[in-house]
Amino acid sequence: MSISTLIDDPLGASTVRLSVETVLDDFLTAKVRHANRPELGYLSGLLRDFLSKGKRIRPLLCITGWQAVGGMGNPEPAFRVAACLEMFHAFALIHDDVMDDSDTRRGRPTIHRALASDHAAGRRPDQTERFGASAAVLLGDLAFVWSDELLHTAGLAPTQLRAVLPLITEMRTEVMLGQYLDLLATGDLTDDVESTLTVNRYKTAKYTIERPLQLGAAIAGASPEAIAAFTEYAIPLGEAFQLRDDLLGVYGDPQATGKSRLDDLRAGKNTTLTTLALRASDSAQAARLRSLIGNPLLDETGAADIRAMFEASAARETVEQMIDDRHRQALQALEGAPFTADAIATLTQIARMATARTS
Amino acid sequence: MSISTLIDDPLGASTVRLSVETVLDDFLTAKVRHANRPELGYLSGLLRDFLSKGKRIRPLLCITGWQAVGGMGNPEPAFRVAACLEMFHAFALIHDDVMDDSDTRRGRPTIHRALASDHAAGRRPDQTERFGASAAVLLGDLAFVWSDELLHTAGLAPTQLRAVLPLITEMRTEVMLGQYLDLLATGDLTDDVESTLTVNRYKTAKYTIERPLQLGAAIAGASPEAIAAFTEYAIPLGEAFQLRDDLLGVYGDPQATGKSRLDDLRAGKNTTLTTLALRASDSAQAARLRSLIGNPLLDETGAADIRAMFEASAARETVEQMIDDRHRQALQALEGAPFTADAIATLTQIARMATARTS
Repeated sequence: MSISTLIDDPLGASTVRLSVETVLDDFLTAKVRHANRPELGYLSGLLRDFLSKGKRIRPLLCITGWQAVGGMGNPEPAFRVAACLEMFHAFALIHDDVMDDSDTRRGRPTIHRALASDHAAGRRPDQTERFGASAAVLLGDLAFVWSDELLHTAGLAPTQLRAVLPLITEMRTEVMLGQYLDLLATGDLTDDVESTLTVNRYKTAKYTIERPLQLGAAIAGASPEAIAAFTEYAIPLGEAFQLRDDLLGVYGDPQATGKSRLDDLRAGKNTTLTTLALRASDSAQAARLRSLIGNPLLDETGAADIRAMFEASAARETVEQMIDDRHRQALQALEGAPFTADAIATLTQIARMATARTS
Repeated sequence: MSISTLIDDPLGASTVRLSVETVLDDFLTAKVRHANRPELGYLSGLLRDFLSKGKRIRPLLCITGWQAVGGMGNPEPAFRVAACLEMFHAFALIHDDVMDDSDTRRGRPTIHRALASDHAAGRRPDQTERFGASAAVLLGDLAFVWSDELLHTAGLAPTQLRAVLPLITEMRTEVMLGQYLDLLATGDLTDDVESTLTVNRYKTAKYTIERPLQLGAAIAGASPEAIAAFTEYAIPLGEAFQLRDDLLGVYGDPQATGKSRLDDLRAGKNTTLTTLALRASDSAQAARLRSLIGNPLLDETGAADIRAMFEASAARETVEQMIDDRHRQALQALEGAPFTADAIATLTQIARMATARTS
């Protein structure tokens, strides 16, 4: 389950989702229709299909932020900024999938695979693969261009723009930094808990939770205190959300999560769970963990071994404790935060569901 | 020689260059200094080094456009938009070099090669190469983010922004489209002159000449007539500039151009020269051309064969004629264009030097 399905419609989550999807679909349909070259129409169509799926987490949080500080009147500019966040996320995912050489995303072939298979005729397999990756980098770049166009054409007043643009720059820079830090750590299991938490903070807590809330709030003219209160709420919550994700990747019920409990372990993903276990291990245990985690052929027996070591080292328990601590910090941040009562109820609910979820 | 060295300082080209370089250097030095993570400081430093080279063609044309329609008063916003164009171009070049897997740029290792060699320790060669490419995609993305920040912080008034932003979106979209069309054509020598000219139009004429001139003019409050006059001037001139480039790649004096006369032919680059020659050839000649062009081992004897076929098919002569025609069209566009007399003199000089150059 994602944050998006956790919001129990108190501020009209289904309305928000529909409005944002309409903005995106209208925008890209116009791009397809008015493309001055058929190739541009084709690329716009690929992006429209890609964007028709997606959890809309950032748009929903953006609108929640807008409403939390009393956003009133015409919601269109806020919906458009929310759509800009979703388009920006498409850019980030398309580039991420090229970097990871992933095959599928949202249950369909990734963009570079789709571009490759559409253009295989007359190319050798290595040329086709290269074409797919290069064209996907370009289509990701186009999504960035159009995300910015959605922002420019959101109808924000100059004072709103002055509040929004610095946050946009921060958000964009932070996610690039998070991706770069993740890239640096890839392929090398670490026992440095702080560095793993730092990647989470940039990739998840700030990018997915803090900045979307603040952007919506900034459109509604939020005070510096309100902007700061969102940080106090979002950073621990975002970290807790990621920590829960790490646990579900290893202990979750595949029926509920929809993903294998072996994938993260086989991929050798650095998580707080793995770093804590490595840190608590003696050298023989650490060697055993390193030989199992990241092994693409890892089976259920090996995974059971890893889980036993996560428990023996108290890594699992510590992560549960970290989630509780962060959940509490997020709730504390809401006490006295200058948000509407409705918004505090929604943000409390989001915090509970994001940290206690089983899927 | 590039356009940048052709501008004989009538509007202060060296001042423009220095001002733009100061904006870029100050901006990135601040990024290095205030980076909240050392890794971000490292990336900012790489980008600053990359940007310390460069011909500044687009910034110079941007300021020429600003002055051509009577830009007066504080030139800072125009310099900052000019710097934003140069930063955007860094983004485009960094991604282009990843896509082409190029080794060098501006006489130094490309960004992905530099990133790879800085991070080879502890990685297998294939992992190092993959790291370099992925990290360069991210650094290119960061350059885009910061190009946009330069624009946001340029100090443009709301009316200036309304004039500038649609042109920025057009420019960004066009260069992505041009790159995509180029990618589609790569590895496949074509005899379709129109499609080769279309790639040139998007990649060179619009991106390098038309949009920078118009952006500068838009900052100065140019009329729709002036904006249209820049198109009339820039498109034929940009095409002529690229056609001259194509000829110099095959016939230029390596001492003057600084590049081998074999590179373009070995790379199998689609140029108007190659498409015209293919179109005029019988099937035996075409097969011979296709076997020579794109052969990475092509030697001077093979190149002489190709040149002989370019001449026998009148391809060379036709390209010279196309340059003359376009040069004339560009000059005609200046007649009666609503530009200052000084600017018309500069634009006339740019047109002459860009089409008649030998380097």
